[in-house]
Amino acid sequence: MVSKFSAELLGTFWLVLGGCGSAVLAAAFPDVGIGLHGVSLAFGLTVVTGAYAFGPISGGHFNPAVSIGLWAGGRFPTALLLPYIVAQVVGGVVGAGVLYLIASGKADFSLAGGFASNGYGAHSPGGYSLAAGLISEVVMTFMFLLVILNTTHKRAPVGFAGLAIGLALTLIHLISIPVTNTSVNPARSTATALFVGGWAIQQLWLFWLAPVIGAALAGVTHTLVLEGPAEEPPVSGRAGR
Amino acid sequence: MVSKFSAELLGTFWLVLGGCGSAVLAAAFPDVGIGLHGVSLAFGLTVVTGAYAFGPISGGHFNPAVSIGLWAGGRFPTALLLPYIVAQVVGGVVGAGVLYLIASGKADFSLAGGFASNGYGAHSPGGYSLAAGLISEVVMTFMFLLVILNTTHKRAPVGFAGLAIGLALTLIHLISIPVTNTSVNPARSTATALFVGGWAIQQLWLFWLAPVIGAALAGVTHTLVLEGPAEEPPVSGRAGR
Amino acid sequence: MVSKFSAELLGTFWLVLGGCGSAVLAAAFPDVGIGLHGVSLAFGLTVVTGAYAFGPISGGHFNPAVSIGLWAGGRFPTALLLPYIVAQVVGGVVGAGVLYLIASGKADFSLAGGFASNGYGAHSPGGYSLAAGLISEVVMTFMFLLVILNTTHKRAPVGFAGLAIGLALTLIHLISIPVTNTSVNPARSTATALFVGGWAIQQLWLFWLAPVIGAALAGVTHTLVLEGPAEEPPVSGRAGR
Amino acid sequence: MVSKFSAELLGTFWLVLGGCGSAVLAAAFPDVGIGLHGVSLAFGLTVVTGAYAFGPISGGHFNPAVSIGLWAGGRFPTALLLPYIVAQVVGGVVGAGVLYLIASGKADFSLAGGFASNGYGAHSPGGYSLAAGLISEVVMTFMFLLVILNTTHKRAPVGFAGLAIGLALTLIHLISIPVTNTSVNPARSTATALFVGGWAIQQLWLFWLAPVIGAALAGVTHTLVLEGPAEEPPVSGRAGR
Repeated sequence: MVSKFSAELLGTFWLVLGGCGSAVLAAAFPDVGIGLHGVSLAFGLTVVTGAYAFGPISGGHFNPAVSIGLWAGGRFPTALLLPYIVAQVVGGVVGAGVLYLIASGKADFSLAGGFASNGYGAHSPGGYSLAAGLISEVVMTFMFLLVILNTTHKRAPVGFAGLAIGLALTLIHLISIPVTNTSVNPARSTATALFVGGWAIQQLWLFWLAPVIGAALAGVTHTLVLEGPAEEPPVSGRAGR
Repeated sequence: MVSKFSAELLGTFWLVLGGCGSAVLAAAFPDVGIGLHGVSLAFGLTVVTGAYAFGPISGGHFNPAVSIGLWAGGRFPTALLLPYIVAQVVGGVVGAGVLYLIASGKADFSLAGGFASNGYGAHSPGGYSLAAGLISEVVMTFMFLLVILNTTHKRAPVGFAGLAIGLALTLIHLISIPVTNTSVNPARSTATALFVGGWAIQQLWLFWLAPVIGAALAGVTHTLVLEGPAEEPPVSGRAGR
Repeated sequence: MVSKFSAELLGTFWLVLGGCGSAVLAAAFPDVGIGLHGVSLAFGLTVVTGAYAFGPISGGHFNPAVSIGLWAGGRFPTALLLPYIVAQVVGGVVGAGVLYLIASGKADFSLAGGFASNGYGAHSPGGYSLAAGLISEVVMTFMFLLVILNTTHKRAPVGFAGLAIGLALTLIHLISIPVTNTSVNPARSTATALFVGGWAIQQLWLFWLAPVIGAALAGVTHTLVLEGPAEEPPVSGRAGR
Repeated sequence: MVSKFSAELLGTFWLVLGGCGSAVLAAAFPDVGIGLHGVSLAFGLTVVTGAYAFGPISGGHFNPAVSIGLWAGGRFPTALLLPYIVAQVVGGVVGAGVLYLIASGKADFSLAGGFASNGYGAHSPGGYSLAAGLISEVVMTFMFLLVILNTTHKRAPVGFAGLAIGLALTLIHLISIPVTNTSVNPARSTATALFVGGWAIQQLWLFWLAPVIGAALAGVTHTLVLEGPAEEPPVSGRAGR
């Protein structure tokens, strides 16, 4: 059990330190900054690398919405749900703490820059409304979980799930950073909000509510719509074989 | 059957929401926008992730030209062709609809920005002629289908097709966004054109005609030229083993 | 035999159309251009996609230096060397021709822009000398061939060679576009030089000589230094297992 | 033995030439430069390509911290430790030497530009303190080694380690180039410092000390915390299967 919780803690630590770290430290570096594209890649690679490293130990969730979605799809035991979520939130907060230690080693650093927190309305990077943020987070988490549920399914090719899932997170960031700074992960949102306080805490409810709704919808959709008869022969010319 | 059509619908939904979404929401974000490079990556990753998630269910076409090309190459049954194309167009339109809901949550949003529609001449991003657009779309779809037909072939290594096919779509966008905004997919073009109307509808014919021609040519070329005797021993030092 | 030569012709066509096409059409697109990073990715993805699509048919060389290096390493038959090189040069020239047709569909296109040709001295993108260009092309091709010879070796994991080889070409472009516009491929250099003429033809000798030297050195090095006893047990903790 | 040391030497040569080469030659190229994002990708791809090419021969360490971390985790023999480190440092220095030959082929080249050396305080790219640099290098190397130790573990899927490890190095650079120019590799730091001299040599101690501490901590953590009972059945829905 210790190894499972350690793996979830370390993986979520890596997700927050790597994803939010690239945003805080490198996104707007003068002239040669990595931009939203580089930040999107960084978030995805935390999951690609974490999935291959820690996935064989804990399943590689690193995200309460993922654990809830897998549980809703009948693929994760109820008894582990709360412990996993605790490990993920703790790991995320430690990741944000280490990022704070590094980032504050620069003279002009300030948490007022947002510290990569998630937000809507006045705190959306592009000024998107609460409704837009809600739709975006629900739909993005829904698709994220469908990718996870199907690429870890027994009919999917072995070994590629970590790559597909991590690159799905990159894709989700490429689309939706301007809307909410992209959460789809309540642990990641909580971690940065605790440091920024104020508005980030006040808006945090959305980044628990929307990802959990999206994930639960995906678990149900997967079971009802996509789980066809297991023995049906596949169509030829399959891309994902 | 429901699972197959749902998979095609969801995959094309994801392709349009993700690819066009990254273009509309993030490409020109001030200072840190993802540019054409990020949009190219996003389009490709919709297919990488969709192929691994939904490919084992439906084959992962997400594109009428792909279904037609596989059919022309003798790898997809005639009876499924029309139902697949309907699912793809419906999925794409729903994807564009969700993107509209999110994008319009920003005060200064306007469909007059083009909504990532495909076009030629005055509506080509770089001002390329109809002839250039026709050649580009035919050739790009031709090569896309050759990649698909060969990477899903029984002699190809198992598991890598989704990666190769998705990255082929990234490559195609890296080349040809300036020419036509890149279609190679009639469902994707139809989805955005329905929202923009006017010129986008008037120019839509090209983005059905050219991809279908390219795909059909690929199906025939594959059968006539590339399908050597199945048992011929391969040359040593093969990159794709 | 027809299928092998067709595969080499199509793959080199794709390499020139895709790699040089991204450079000519999209690299410097106003505000959202893909830059040298995007061009580097495009060149690499032509090989990733071509290797998985055509590699099982022809070996996926798409480059006279690759055929020569594999031959020097004892992995490619002498009888096929000249036919392969002819197919590669023809494919490359056709690729450059199709790119010309598309690119000239824009009003202000001119071959005087260089058409992605390779050069040194006054025609090096960054103003690098002939000596720097020679060293760069020899060393880059040497490492490219070592990657090819070893990732297609029987001890390497099955399926990953196409990815490693294509990404090696991306890496090589990320390093050396400023020096020579990056060749490491005489067919690619010849294809664009034929359209530009003048200086591009006059400097073309370097982009046959240097890649061939680098490739031959790699073939010999591989045989002499890296081919240890086949049965020696590997060190544990191997990254490439 | 010659093949193992040659593989480590060539791989570290490639890491320094490719990673530092992309930084020196292409990062700040006018208008179309690859930026920190492109440099991060280049460093990672040196390891992806090196791992698949040379990993089956030597294990693909290319980094004294990696050898030390694997040794601390009980996965690398003591007798090979020093010879490996010597081969890595020699390979790195030769890589920096070839880079110097190429880079100095441009009229306005100067080592005063830093030659991609690692530094802190006044020599940190973003002006980060010694403490920030120390924390960053320790934590980044710690996570790098955890990824290596776990993706090369017998329970991890075969073939994906080279991809995960190389992309971990890309991620580490996306985060931490602004802090120290990113080392996590004493051989890479030594190679460029020898050319720059002065401050780069004076600050070199940090880039031996911090990576070695991080690597050793990872080896111990892996053994104590993550090595659960080998036969425990995994949680379902595993990303990394």
